[in-house]
Amino acid sequence: MVTIKDSVHDHIEVEGAAAALLDTEPVQRLRHIKQLGTVHLVYPSANHTRFEHSLGVYHLADRALDHLGIDGIRAERLRAAALLHDVGHGPYSHNVEAVTFRHTGKYHDDVHELLASGEVGEVLGAHDLDPERVADLVAGDGQYGQLVSGELDVDRMDYLVRDAHHTGVPYGTIDHERLIRELTFVDGELVLAEGNVQTAESLLLARALMNPTVYQHHVARIAKAMLRRGAERLLDRTETTPTDLRRMDDHELLVALRTTRATSDLARRLRTRDLYKRAVWAELDAVPDDIVDADHGAVSEFESAVADRAGLSAGSVIVDVPGRPSMTESSSRVMVSGEMRRLGKQSPLVSALRTAQKQQWRLGVYAPPDVTDRVGRAAVDVLGLDLDGALVSDVRPGVTATLDEFTGP
Amino acid sequence: MVTIKDSVHDHIEVEGAAAALLDTEPVQRLRHIKQLGTVHLVYPSANHTRFEHSLGVYHLADRALDHLGIDGIRAERLRAAALLHDVGHGPYSHNVEAVTFRHTGKYHDDVHELLASGEVGEVLGAHDLDPERVADLVAGDGQYGQLVSGELDVDRMDYLVRDAHHTGVPYGTIDHERLIRELTFVDGELVLAEGNVQTAESLLLARALMNPTVYQHHVARIAKAMLRRGAERLLDRTETTPTDLRRMDDHELLVALRTTRATSDLARRLRTRDLYKRAVWAELDAVPDDIVDADHGAVSEFESAVADRAGLSAGSVIVDVPGRPSMTESSSRVMVSGEMRRLGKQSPLVSALRTAQKQQWRLGVYAPPDVTDRVGRAAVDVLGLDLDGALVSDVRPGVTATLDEFTGP
Amino acid sequence: MVTIKDSVHDHIEVEGAAAALLDTEPVQRLRHIKQLGTVHLVYPSANHTRFEHSLGVYHLADRALDHLGIDGIRAERLRAAALLHDVGHGPYSHNVEAVTFRHTGKYHDDVHELLASGEVGEVLGAHDLDPERVADLVAGDGQYGQLVSGELDVDRMDYLVRDAHHTGVPYGTIDHERLIRELTFVDGELVLAEGNVQTAESLLLARALMNPTVYQHHVARIAKAMLRRGAERLLDRTETTPTDLRRMDDHELLVALRTTRATSDLARRLRTRDLYKRAVWAELDAVPDDIVDADHGAVSEFESAVADRAGLSAGSVIVDVPGRPSMTESSSRVMVSGEMRRLGKQSPLVSALRTAQKQQWRLGVYAPPDVTDRVGRAAVDVLGLDLDGALVSDVRPGVTATLDEFTGP
Amino acid sequence: MVTIKDSVHDHIEVEGAAAALLDTEPVQRLRHIKQLGTVHLVYPSANHTRFEHSLGVYHLADRALDHLGIDGIRAERLRAAALLHDVGHGPYSHNVEAVTFRHTGKYHDDVHELLASGEVGEVLGAHDLDPERVADLVAGDGQYGQLVSGELDVDRMDYLVRDAHHTGVPYGTIDHERLIRELTFVDGELVLAEGNVQTAESLLLARALMNPTVYQHHVARIAKAMLRRGAERLLDRTETTPTDLRRMDDHELLVALRTTRATSDLARRLRTRDLYKRAVWAELDAVPDDIVDADHGAVSEFESAVADRAGLSAGSVIVDVPGRPSMTESSSRVMVSGEMRRLGKQSPLVSALRTAQKQQWRLGVYAPPDVTDRVGRAAVDVLGLDLDGALVSDVRPGVTATLDEFTGP
Repeated sequence: MVTIKDSVHDHIEVEGAAAALLDTEPVQRLRHIKQLGTVHLVYPSANHTRFEHSLGVYHLADRALDHLGIDGIRAERLRAAALLHDVGHGPYSHNVEAVTFRHTGKYHDDVHELLASGEVGEVLGAHDLDPERVADLVAGDGQYGQLVSGELDVDRMDYLVRDAHHTGVPYGTIDHERLIRELTFVDGELVLAEGNVQTAESLLLARALMNPTVYQHHVARIAKAMLRRGAERLLDRTETTPTDLRRMDDHELLVALRTTRATSDLARRLRTRDLYKRAVWAELDAVPDDIVDADHGAVSEFESAVADRAGLSAGSVIVDVPGRPSMTESSSRVMVSGEMRRLGKQSPLVSALRTAQKQQWRLGVYAPPDVTDRVGRAAVDVLGLDLDGALVSDVRPGVTATLDEFTGP
Repeated sequence: MVTIKDSVHDHIEVEGAAAALLDTEPVQRLRHIKQLGTVHLVYPSANHTRFEHSLGVYHLADRALDHLGIDGIRAERLRAAALLHDVGHGPYSHNVEAVTFRHTGKYHDDVHELLASGEVGEVLGAHDLDPERVADLVAGDGQYGQLVSGELDVDRMDYLVRDAHHTGVPYGTIDHERLIRELTFVDGELVLAEGNVQTAESLLLARALMNPTVYQHHVARIAKAMLRRGAERLLDRTETTPTDLRRMDDHELLVALRTTRATSDLARRLRTRDLYKRAVWAELDAVPDDIVDADHGAVSEFESAVADRAGLSAGSVIVDVPGRPSMTESSSRVMVSGEMRRLGKQSPLVSALRTAQKQQWRLGVYAPPDVTDRVGRAAVDVLGLDLDGALVSDVRPGVTATLDEFTGP
Repeated sequence: MVTIKDSVHDHIEVEGAAAALLDTEPVQRLRHIKQLGTVHLVYPSANHTRFEHSLGVYHLADRALDHLGIDGIRAERLRAAALLHDVGHGPYSHNVEAVTFRHTGKYHDDVHELLASGEVGEVLGAHDLDPERVADLVAGDGQYGQLVSGELDVDRMDYLVRDAHHTGVPYGTIDHERLIRELTFVDGELVLAEGNVQTAESLLLARALMNPTVYQHHVARIAKAMLRRGAERLLDRTETTPTDLRRMDDHELLVALRTTRATSDLARRLRTRDLYKRAVWAELDAVPDDIVDADHGAVSEFESAVADRAGLSAGSVIVDVPGRPSMTESSSRVMVSGEMRRLGKQSPLVSALRTAQKQQWRLGVYAPPDVTDRVGRAAVDVLGLDLDGALVSDVRPGVTATLDEFTGP
Repeated sequence: MVTIKDSVHDHIEVEGAAAALLDTEPVQRLRHIKQLGTVHLVYPSANHTRFEHSLGVYHLADRALDHLGIDGIRAERLRAAALLHDVGHGPYSHNVEAVTFRHTGKYHDDVHELLASGEVGEVLGAHDLDPERVADLVAGDGQYGQLVSGELDVDRMDYLVRDAHHTGVPYGTIDHERLIRELTFVDGELVLAEGNVQTAESLLLARALMNPTVYQHHVARIAKAMLRRGAERLLDRTETTPTDLRRMDDHELLVALRTTRATSDLARRLRTRDLYKRAVWAELDAVPDDIVDADHGAVSEFESAVADRAGLSAGSVIVDVPGRPSMTESSSRVMVSGEMRRLGKQSPLVSALRTAQKQQWRLGVYAPPDVTDRVGRAAVDVLGLDLDGALVSDVRPGVTATLDEFTGP
């Protein structure tokens, strides 16, 4: 057994297959991947890594299994999946995931291949764990997969608390102990026991507040878009393959960007926080549908067209179109008066949060600070934005810069 | 200057009139009044007092004044009001406020009389502060009164964080530092500056989660109802006057209840947590309007009728009818795109919270554990409750007791 | 099973005999006894009670038993002892213990009689636990008694962390999780496992820093001495018996002091923090041996003599002589290079702490603020104090009042 | 003004020259240098950086200046020094400092050259601050330099609290607010005001406990020694100059080690935590004086001789000789009874800490796990160690591995 001191959960005990997995390269590599990617450019203390998060998820999974009375090989498999759930992440976590996905067709939770071979495959084999089934759990499949990846998974419970601890933003401070204790299986579904409507709501609310404040802070989004642009160029102009890229860690990506001519300016800007600024920051209603739904190729063309209109070289404009606010209903389940109810049915807050999410959606157009004015005007024309009340640029006259601007040097 | 160590805000510096007010009996008395009354019967660590809370409110007011650039006599008056804002509380804070109000016509924030005389009046006078104007601020009157009592007041900022610290329930953990920093006056209204929709929402959400989990926890409500019953009997059957009652502290009320024959059983039950249980716990839709809107006299009659029907002596049944969920719109104001907006207009969460509040409303009927069954049936008849799906009693067969039951011995 | 939310250990699960003991009057009574007595007059947030502390001690005992692999009836007995370890406390915990001891010959950890009868005796009997053996554990007897009361007991681990949380003074923040995990029995002795010299030292150091800063803060000592004086008068001049006194809770003692003519002034002073002040504050070297070793009777005579010399009525002077700094060696044991060593042998810090403790010893003479000058001079004469550099009175000219003065209104 | 959210101090406001300095490359570079170097291999959450620490030191300096009543250009200079105090650090902070010092003659606090030119020099000039004088403050020179670098400096106050927050080890949790408030200048010396002997002791004790537990944890020491060895080889076998090395950040050093043939194995080991183990771990008394005092050249020769004797290639043995425990007296000063005293005179703990420090001193000999046995025996011979009770190797039979072994995967 290994005992590890953690800043969030204090002592974490790791044993069995998980203890052996700890020493493998794919798990140790997570020490070098920041949990929140570019968010540290907004919240300087947010330097925690996927490694400590993975330990936390393992720990909460272990506690949940204990409360649920699950043991034996099933528990061993789940604990392994919890520890391994993030080994599929590329450098800077979600920040370059879109790039690797376009080229490899794999998101970070598609780890069947990764687990089947190498050190991890060997350790799993030595402990009689089927890599295929562990990878299924990581993907959230099956009854028990819900614990690792689902509406009430231990992944979210760990990251909310951990991100709050390391950013200093208290909104993620949920009652994870209570959540773990109240989990139960009813008819094969993971639900919260009777008396926990507020417990379930609190989890949703924590995420709803952390999202705009931390995860989607506009400065983090700008830096992320710049990083993505850099990663694309690495693939286009160097011999780096998509698979190489996916297996890099943060150090390797940063140094690769610095030492590649086509990306060295982006690298310098990211390193010294000399970032692009917002030329456009438009609400959903102001953006034509075809822009909102544009694919990567179309967005690239928009970027070129905007740069052209502004008299700039291609590549100095970034158009950042987030996915359409997801309208999936919250499928968290909670027992109310003896029956299982979807939280979306039970709680008026769920649909309000969907509306809020739609309100918070923003299209961003970013460019170097000295040309945002020009780029902003060009983008409005090219993209056919409906300006009225919708444009909030960093340089928009008459608008006091928001506090967000000031949060983080 | 006096420097005081606080468990929430670390060091608090008190100076000027406030430092002199600290030594007066009405302020020192707050050391003996629990901030959360009977909540400590659910959350055993919740023994914090109105005294430390008053210091916290003073501290936050002082910081807010600093950020707002308010100084001089106006600031001195506000700081005094912040420190004094709770001196009008009776024993067990809000728990017996309804009783004293019925007899004195005064809520806890009506302190004109209290501030005008005695030690407090002298200190205010000696510092050239008009007691009348200080009492107005305590009541939330005028532009600056909003800071002490209003939608964005420092009272709430302190109690949410403090109650979270002392109960262990994390939902109240707001970003009070940011709230303070973002306060500003626009056209005489206290508002949050641009970029703070989430900041404003977080304050509402924290309260929305603390309410059912802490402040309105059913065990705390039962104990509170028993305490109120005890206080009424003290007034009815002893020489204690309403004014006497209002100026008691927690010790005095408890000992008075123990040493009075008519209340000694209630006192023993409260002391040893041998509380009444829920005979009925009915949702708003299940309760006829005339019951929801019944006044104190009517409720007393219902109690007698239920006891009678159940074959019990009057006094062994408590009917607890909370006020109708308040439909006042949230008047928090926040700047959005350069204009002042009411949060209720801006945020879809506000109306969702109103709906949630309505859902959480419960009529309670409480009785000694051995007769809840009988009392439940009697109450359903007498009150004309619409049972279907609405009755959730502590003893209802087939319903797993909720976790709430288990939270707190 | 009962699950209780605690501000320090989060969720505490209570089961078996302990769950039944929770509902008894002697345990519920601890809700009304402050953990730190008069310390809340210095640190206003220190209102936590013996009840929550007892739950915490139960919780840590349970975890320690788990780590030590102790279960069955032995574990049940230890858990009961942990929960009951403080039921022998009188009102205001240690503050009036000296008084009740003089009259009853019992300290708070002498609970054989208390556990043998009444509700507690019944519950223990119903769970096949011998009250005698449980009381032995509370007294620290036997191999397992060390866990409840000894150099490495869980009592201390809980109170240091809890007192830090509630006072805001961080010195008590030890790594209690590690301490629990490293406990082991070797040859019947409770020791810390290999590699824990610093862990053991940290526990001693935490206490060494909390002592002068919190537990022995001079303002708390003054209030405690006044409370003790009040308790003595209750016994002398009313029908209150020593046994009555010992079974009071804080409310009852406070109200008794207020309503008794001979103690009403003390009660008023304590309630409004209008305390006596130091007339003398003398180091050990400045005090003749016969004063340091004087018993209660002798001290009373000194008090009368000082009052007389100062021209005051008897009773307006308090002479507060702490016990001689205890020279017992630290008997904490820790494994070093495979052998069990006493920490006092292993760590140079232990003897340094003894020296520090001696340096911090102070004789106090207290009196109403307006007569401290007179009383100070009289006391120096009567007690034969060696003034040079040793007298530090609250009113001594030329000495800046210490920060301690300012800490707490 | 820039407001930054920090995980330790909450909101930090940066203004004036410091705000402009924030945007310079030498300050932004600190984002990429871990505060605790290899300690994250023991405590996985310890990924915080010199950047956030520098902000914290700036913040505490600003508060101290406020309390001390220092403003104007002197305060501006001190705030700049506080923010810049760590820009002289090489990659992995102190871990490779010995290497760069041997070649450049500069420790991290020698920044005269760095501040005089480039972006930092320009910003200082633009704000009328003399780089020379700012660099003097960084070096701790002059009356005000004590605030930045000295026994009571704000550097230490920040790092203790921050390291505790991020490692999870509570020993560093000092009362930094009180320390700041109690600072005062007497006769040009920075001292703690009357009544703060314990405050001063607590600072020393926190460091004394953090040292062996965190900063000098043997696993961190092993990794540090491996990193140092790698850095030396980079200088020996590549074109990297000492100045290049000093200006690298963590990413660059790691990637350079990975991509250089002579260091790639060390790099792989560091990346996957496949570290060398202790072959010898000897107390001071067991090590001949000439070994304790050996310089770098002599140690290199010992390493070769040990490797030779063990039949291994040069380079597979590391001899790690810490500096002799420093015997400088603690020069912290504190006011006692109106006079300034050195803490070393006043507190018996200071000399005890010196003794403890001597006891904790260990010579380490490290080698790949499969050869530690051989290397241990060879080292004992070659170095002439006095084995008796002094050798504690990772593989020593009969010694239970210490918990330290388990702390951290």
